[in-house]
Amino acid sequence: MDAEGILSLPLAWAEGKGNSADVIVSSRVRLARNLDRFPFVTRATPEERKSVAEAVREAIESEPLFRECTCCPVCELEALSRGLLVERRLMSPGFLKGCPERVLFIDAKGIVSVMVNEEDHLRIQVLLGGLALCEASRIASSIDRILTRLGFAFDSEFGFLTTCPTNVGTGLRASVMLHLPALKMSHAMPEIIAQSGRLGLVVRGAYGEGTTSAGSLYQVSNQVTLGLSPEELIEKVEAIASRLAEQEGRARDVLLKGQKTLEDRLWRAWGTLSHARRIGLSEAMECLSLVRMGQEAGLGAPFNKMPWGRLFLDIQPGHVQARTGRQLSEEETEVARAELIRNALAQL
Amino acid sequence: MDAEGILSLPLAWAEGKGNSADVIVSSRVRLARNLDRFPFVTRATPEERKSVAEAVREAIESEPLFRECTCCPVCELEALSRGLLVERRLMSPGFLKGCPERVLFIDAKGIVSVMVNEEDHLRIQVLLGGLALCEASRIASSIDRILTRLGFAFDSEFGFLTTCPTNVGTGLRASVMLHLPALKMSHAMPEIIAQSGRLGLVVRGAYGEGTTSAGSLYQVSNQVTLGLSPEELIEKVEAIASRLAEQEGRARDVLLKGQKTLEDRLWRAWGTLSHARRIGLSEAMECLSLVRMGQEAGLGAPFNKMPWGRLFLDIQPGHVQARTGRQLSEEETEVARAELIRNALAQL
Repeated sequence: MDAEGILSLPLAWAEGKGNSADVIVSSRVRLARNLDRFPFVTRATPEERKSVAEAVREAIESEPLFRECTCCPVCELEALSRGLLVERRLMSPGFLKGCPERVLFIDAKGIVSVMVNEEDHLRIQVLLGGLALCEASRIASSIDRILTRLGFAFDSEFGFLTTCPTNVGTGLRASVMLHLPALKMSHAMPEIIAQSGRLGLVVRGAYGEGTTSAGSLYQVSNQVTLGLSPEELIEKVEAIASRLAEQEGRARDVLLKGQKTLEDRLWRAWGTLSHARRIGLSEAMECLSLVRMGQEAGLGAPFNKMPWGRLFLDIQPGHVQARTGRQLSEEETEVARAELIRNALAQL
Repeated sequence: MDAEGILSLPLAWAEGKGNSADVIVSSRVRLARNLDRFPFVTRATPEERKSVAEAVREAIESEPLFRECTCCPVCELEALSRGLLVERRLMSPGFLKGCPERVLFIDAKGIVSVMVNEEDHLRIQVLLGGLALCEASRIASSIDRILTRLGFAFDSEFGFLTTCPTNVGTGLRASVMLHLPALKMSHAMPEIIAQSGRLGLVVRGAYGEGTTSAGSLYQVSNQVTLGLSPEELIEKVEAIASRLAEQEGRARDVLLKGQKTLEDRLWRAWGTLSHARRIGLSEAMECLSLVRMGQEAGLGAPFNKMPWGRLFLDIQPGHVQARTGRQLSEEETEVARAELIRNALAQL
């Protein structure tokens, strides 16, 4: 699949639609599965991994549900396309490096992707906009049921077996990406992160290392995959995501009430986005985060029609390069990013 | 004179016209004079200071040249007007505090002002746009000649006598205000300041304390008033001002050549000015300085028509309050300043 094809894929989660979309950007369910009759990816021979990929491809291609699915052997992907797929979260960054037998399947709606020979033989991922873990889980389960005839490694005591023990059991990771600028500004995140840990959940910056969170984007997901049913795990993550969305809403109200300073920050972010001639990724994400906050806070024009999700994606380095049509140096990327943002805002 | 009257005064130096106006904002000549028959201001009785003021008023009012001059006893000036006059550099900040017998004369063109009972009995000041020390000196001398019949304190050895010994001799201070953003960015100012000192000249930030220079505005003036003729002093200051203007021009060329980073800074300054909802004085001055640099560097629209000098004045706290028509808290001033700037830019 070439860069143009990937850019033209729909991207439900970037459209800013769905439940609680003012705070919740996207919901993701991921299942880790391995084929019983082959060794795990790290222990398998190239031949065995090739056989795994073949078996999965046959299973998928014979299934009417996957008719419009695209099969992408990672080795054949051009450099520009790889960056795009990671930034669109259709494959993991880790999937870029790995054995040559890696294959990615993507459905035509940009919702489902299946990574073959990542850490596990199969990683089935469903990604939707807003708070939609149940729906994502329903879709993931239906794919799981179809592929189960490949013969999954399963232990009656432990459940699904996986390369890394942290995935054993349900093999399920449910995660929600939230935009929490007000909680971050109010310095509430460290406490929230600590509390979540005690509940067996992980809250971390969705972009950036450690506790930093470029663009005030956070991800909440289940820590453990064992001991609870998939439904219970989903419910747990969904519950905390909803609670965080509520807290964020209250924090925004508090910050906006009578605070000229915050309004000023939001407008300055707009000023920077609409005028900078060169801008780095983290600053651009921070400004977009503030502009999104201004949009949700009802600051009106010009915030109204800001295509936040799409722009957020378009400023990622792989997207900037793909839109420019060639690989760029860091300075060139920053200049192109600034131009891309200015053009987008000028069209509003 | 009320605030409205002062705001309607023309202000040659703020119009950005004159020689080397791309770098040189204004030229000022100031003469210190004292009346022979009265003690210096600090030693005179209130009655004596009142007599000084009366004598000066008579001399000025009987002179056709001063027909359209306004006489303002400082005590009668309302608070809003005082700030305006200082910010327009028609009177010194020190003149705000002092004896009750202070009187200010301003000509209708906003070029000449005479302070009576400041540190000396008379401070005659001429302020013009661009590099125009000779012209300013010519005007100051003509006023000096007219007022000389008041009988100035003069010593054949020392020249004109003044309260502070640093003004003895010619009583002349020639100063030029320059906009030197590129020399400041290139960290060239400390060396320039040191060199000037060795030449008997002072270069210092025109606004802000010590070596800081809000808005990259610097003032160069003569240190000594003794031992050189007025013409020699003027020539000396004019020569260094011209040299600094040349150096600044070269530094701008170097900075702008191929440096996307500088262009970015200039545009971001525009973005801040056109979007901030609250802005402090020093940040606003810095942004205006950058925008002026962009204007001179030929960045084109929207920099083209920026009324830099006028806006620079309008953002000063006294002007912000006078335009709003009342005294404001610091936060209110910052909010009003941001609004005033946005409105000015929106009208371009």
